Amino acid sequence: MAKRSNKTIRARSAAKPRARQAAADDSVITALKLPPAPLSPEMAAYFAKCADKLGFVPNVLKAYAFDMAKLSAFVALYNDLMLAPSGLSKLEREMIAVAVSAHNRCYYCLVAHGAGVRQLSGDPVLGELMAMNYRSARLSKRERAMLDFAQKLTAEPWLIEENDRDRLRRAGFTDRDIWDIAAIAGFFNMSNRVASATDMRPNSVYHGQAR
Amino acid sequence: MAKRSNKTIRARSAAKPRARQAAADDSVITALKLPPAPLSPEMAAYFAKCADKLGFVPNVLKAYAFDMAKLSAFVALYNDLMLAPSGLSKLEREMIAVAVSAHNRCYYCLVAHGAGVRQLSGDPVLGELMAMNYRSARLSKRERAMLDFAQKLTAEPWLIEENDRDRLRRAGFTDRDIWDIAAIAGFFNMSNRVASATDMRPNSVYHGQAR
Amino acid sequence: MAKRSNKTIRARSAAKPRARQAAADDSVITALKLPPAPLSPEMAAYFAKCADKLGFVPNVLKAYAFDMAKLSAFVALYNDLMLAPSGLSKLEREMIAVAVSAHNRCYYCLVAHGAGVRQLSGDPVLGELMAMNYRSARLSKRERAMLDFAQKLTAEPWLIEENDRDRLRRAGFTDRDIWDIAAIAGFFNMSNRVASATDMRPNSVYHGQAR
Amino acid sequence: MAKRSNKTIRARSAAKPRARQAAADDSVITALKLPPAPLSPEMAAYFAKCADKLGFVPNVLKAYAFDMAKLSAFVALYNDLMLAPSGLSKLEREMIAVAVSAHNRCYYCLVAHGAGVRQLSGDPVLGELMAMNYRSARLSKRERAMLDFAQKLTAEPWLIEENDRDRLRRAGFTDRDIWDIAAIAGFFNMSNRVASATDMRPNSVYHGQAR
Amino acid sequence: MAKRSNKTIRARSAAKPRARQAAADDSVITALKLPPAPLSPEMAAYFAKCADKLGFVPNVLKAYAFDMAKLSAFVALYNDLMLAPSGLSKLEREMIAVAVSAHNRCYYCLVAHGAGVRQLSGDPVLGELMAMNYRSARLSKRERAMLDFAQKLTAEPWLIEENDRDRLRRAGFTDRDIWDIAAIAGFFNMSNRVASATDMRPNSVYHGQAR
Amino acid sequence: MAKRSNKTIRARSAAKPRARQAAADDSVITALKLPPAPLSPEMAAYFAKCADKLGFVPNVLKAYAFDMAKLSAFVALYNDLMLAPSGLSKLEREMIAVAVSAHNRCYYCLVAHGAGVRQLSGDPVLGELMAMNYRSARLSKRERAMLDFAQKLTAEPWLIEENDRDRLRRAGFTDRDIWDIAAIAGFFNMSNRVASATDMRPNSVYHGQAR
Repeated sequence: MAKRSNKTIRARSAAKPRARQAAADDSVITALKLPPAPLSPEMAAYFAKCADKLGFVPNVLKAYAFDMAKLSAFVALYNDLMLAPSGLSKLEREMIAVAVSAHNRCYYCLVAHGAGVRQLSGDPVLGELMAMNYRSARLSKRERAMLDFAQKLTAEPWLIEENDRDRLRRAGFTDRDIWDIAAIAGFFNMSNRVASATDMRPNSVYHGQAR
Repeated sequence: MAKRSNKTIRARSAAKPRARQAAADDSVITALKLPPAPLSPEMAAYFAKCADKLGFVPNVLKAYAFDMAKLSAFVALYNDLMLAPSGLSKLEREMIAVAVSAHNRCYYCLVAHGAGVRQLSGDPVLGELMAMNYRSARLSKRERAMLDFAQKLTAEPWLIEENDRDRLRRAGFTDRDIWDIAAIAGFFNMSNRVASATDMRPNSVYHGQAR
Repeated sequence: MAKRSNKTIRARSAAKPRARQAAADDSVITALKLPPAPLSPEMAAYFAKCADKLGFVPNVLKAYAFDMAKLSAFVALYNDLMLAPSGLSKLEREMIAVAVSAHNRCYYCLVAHGAGVRQLSGDPVLGELMAMNYRSARLSKRERAMLDFAQKLTAEPWLIEENDRDRLRRAGFTDRDIWDIAAIAGFFNMSNRVASATDMRPNSVYHGQAR
Repeated sequence: MAKRSNKTIRARSAAKPRARQAAADDSVITALKLPPAPLSPEMAAYFAKCADKLGFVPNVLKAYAFDMAKLSAFVALYNDLMLAPSGLSKLEREMIAVAVSAHNRCYYCLVAHGAGVRQLSGDPVLGELMAMNYRSARLSKRERAMLDFAQKLTAEPWLIEENDRDRLRRAGFTDRDIWDIAAIAGFFNMSNRVASATDMRPNSVYHGQAR
Repeated sequence: MAKRSNKTIRARSAAKPRARQAAADDSVITALKLPPAPLSPEMAAYFAKCADKLGFVPNVLKAYAFDMAKLSAFVALYNDLMLAPSGLSKLEREMIAVAVSAHNRCYYCLVAHGAGVRQLSGDPVLGELMAMNYRSARLSKRERAMLDFAQKLTAEPWLIEENDRDRLRRAGFTDRDIWDIAAIAGFFNMSNRVASATDMRPNSVYHGQAR
Repeated sequence: MAKRSNKTIRARSAAKPRARQAAADDSVITALKLPPAPLSPEMAAYFAKCADKLGFVPNVLKAYAFDMAKLSAFVALYNDLMLAPSGLSKLEREMIAVAVSAHNRCYYCLVAHGAGVRQLSGDPVLGELMAMNYRSARLSKRERAMLDFAQKLTAEPWLIEENDRDRLRRAGFTDRDIWDIAAIAGFFNMSNRVASATDMRPNSVYHGQAR
């Protein structure tokens, strides 16, 4: 509790100052040496748009930029799922992203999409709760049903059956909404694994956003 | 062992004949009611190409066909991962697909990609082994390292670290190959979940292919 | 999807042709060097009956044939459980065998008893479904209750209680049926482990049966 | 620690005296109503031998006695595994029985075979350790290797491979010994499940044996 | 079953007699070399009281006795939880201790508190059941609800929610009782880990108590 | 990525504004109705000291304040473990606290001790990494060994053996340090469960500290 005074510590590890954790995250983006390819005009425009709107290019895009086909396929899928019209609000989509990434303990996605939840909700603590344990959050029935489905689909997809879909329907979701919940939860089960497999590092700027 | 004679059975359940399991799989493709959208010219051409080359349109494509943006994003990602040039052979990519789908017990993907392994290898039993337990197969060190990585990434992605990547490098994989293994394993962790969430059913024709 | 053309692949692993997976399965039956004992007259007659009725002697019998006491005890137990009169049909018993073996990912039993389900049901896809995920099959309530019990008993036997038995009773099973479900599920939990511990290989002929 | 004085307790549950846990274990042997069949002459002789040597007939035998074919198959298999000549001592076989039953948390087998370990070893605490956590026992390398194999085979049989068998060989076990370890571990994975599925209760006399 | 005659065994491991398991448990209390500190007057009095009332000083106290601050903090917490007035009887508290320790497979706590359950209940088999599988015991609804909560809190604390607390309330527990159940289950989740991390050994005298 | 514009959303859930997640966390501290007891002079002084040094009284103290004996026992244990002299630095102790709480997904402890890591390290991202996946942090060998031990002790305490302790010794830890790692990991396995069982809510002020 009283965490301030450090005087009495005689710890052997305290000798040399530690490098800050995120020091290299903006320069060494993954553990794989994959030199960037020339950006296609379409992707160059997209990177410029990111830099303009966000102030930076998300590291995941740089990580995919060794191959334009892979980069543009990823961008198309991501933007359709997270930004196109849907019965799910953008905040709900980000909540799924973080809850799935919490199960998979994915550093990149927790940082980037935790910031997304904080920004879209204007409630920093909601972002923390999605990353720590969504069951501790004060959620509407709709949100809770949505996250319970995404969680089960992440942890034990082989157990999903009609009664799981019916639970979503009873919470007010349409069949199209169910597709979107499944597709977003599925997408982050993919992205979490690409990020973990490559030790992808999030842009350090995310950490301070919307606190 | 002697499984033929049925004479002595007095089972109460034997009364009425059962419908064949795959009877409806080609007509009721998912548990969601999502009416197909008009195919875009690009997608119409792609469906025609599938019908021409394979003799049928894979049900996963029909399942995505309620929305052209979602369908074309899925097709672009799938074709890049499974068919574009890579240090991984097409058979190796299908082996990853099946081993991942076996962990996730995904009916759709096990059937469709089990057929893929049988076709590309010309060895029907290899397809069975990928679906049942890849550890029981007689694999090269390269194949085994590849599947062990894909399996760990599927089951416990949070545990992947540099020594896991180094094991792949020692088995002869380049950093680009590692990306491809991760991206394919990631992709099927997505597809397995979309399929399980929607009860997606595989085209019945897969079952008999390349036996 | 389009899996045919292999022309563009430059994979380093494609150099030498692979041996077929089941090539040795009929000669090297387990990983243990246990020379066969002389067959007792009773077991010699049983092997002859198998060869006559099935066209081959199942490898599991050859694996046990290093010791006549072990072989005949195994045969007696197996035949009582799988072939003697029971409230469970022979097909239902094989369905339990495969669903249990799927949980335990046992190559031998999935192959041998998958063939059994295909033969007894006349529906090849039912065999696939039992091996992949029985929850994806279209089952009667009776079958589903039976497999749910067998699955729970396999995965977490310590959780079985009276309400689990009552669920079977409500699905129409007698106490004697419950014993049979438990005994068959138990038996394959034994056999799966003997097969996995010894790397037991199934007769290659099973793979093509009743497709 | 000081557990004697009960004076200060005001617990609401203390009102009526509880029945002793094992009160009914010798009369209501399982949760299934399966009336005993007439004992065959062979089984009658075996029951008499048990009563003579042990002072009682183990409840598992009474539980199987509704059907002579099932009873005699069980007895033949059990006696071969646990009592016939083997490279494993009878104590080692009982140690496997208890360690497997501990993983499966099987009340019947922990009680009956815990008594077996106590009797054969003359060391009551060894029985406790097998039931609680065999890793806390002070074991020879041979015993530890044997139990580690049995434990892995029980918990994750799909992971057993040649290096697991080699570890046993390096600990001095022959291929025949490996079979016996696997067969005994397999057998208790069966028996644990039959016992749990039927709520089989151990003879109360076991509890006090060889303490 | 017939476990007596040892004559036919030819086991290679039988050569030299084994040391009894508990031989060193009263002298080598943990795997850590932490020399005892001088007992404070308060702790010296407490040790004397233990020796007087129990006939021995529990090894856990000796294990903590390298540091008086740690020892007295442990004693204060333990005595408050297990001996101070509470809506839970002392037996109920010991039942929680053993059920939690069974999940964590903690040798020290299972032995020490198994003896506690035997003593307080006067029913030796109840102690065995708590250590083996509390679900096999014949419990009141109150006891069962209490242990189910403690078990879930031990295995998956992140899943506890208001409906779990409500289940306890419906079984007659007050909010203060719920605190006590949680605090005791929590305490043994701590103690189990300290004991396992240090290989803490129980006083050998516990084994024979109240059998 | 572009998360700003919300214009195109037509989500049905967006109608009414949501309450902020932490709105009630400072007033409704747990889900149990346990009226506070009068503070003892010692505890009143301690609360005053907290208010003075930290600016607030941590909610965990208020949660325990229904009973002075429980509160003072908790405070004594906590302060000894986290603040008394030790071979572990205060930062190392907080890192263990967060890594353990991350496994147990405990909202209260992740928030309170995540702030502790941020404060003591002066590196906000280190706090995030401990809460998300400590394996993604750039740690010294000493820190990594310490957290691997704490993690294993949390997840599977029954597997800890001498080789685990030896790994700590090789990383430079003394036996006393091993005790401290175990005791702190154990303590948070207790506190996480008390917090989860009671839905304990962290003071809202923690969220913004040392960002």
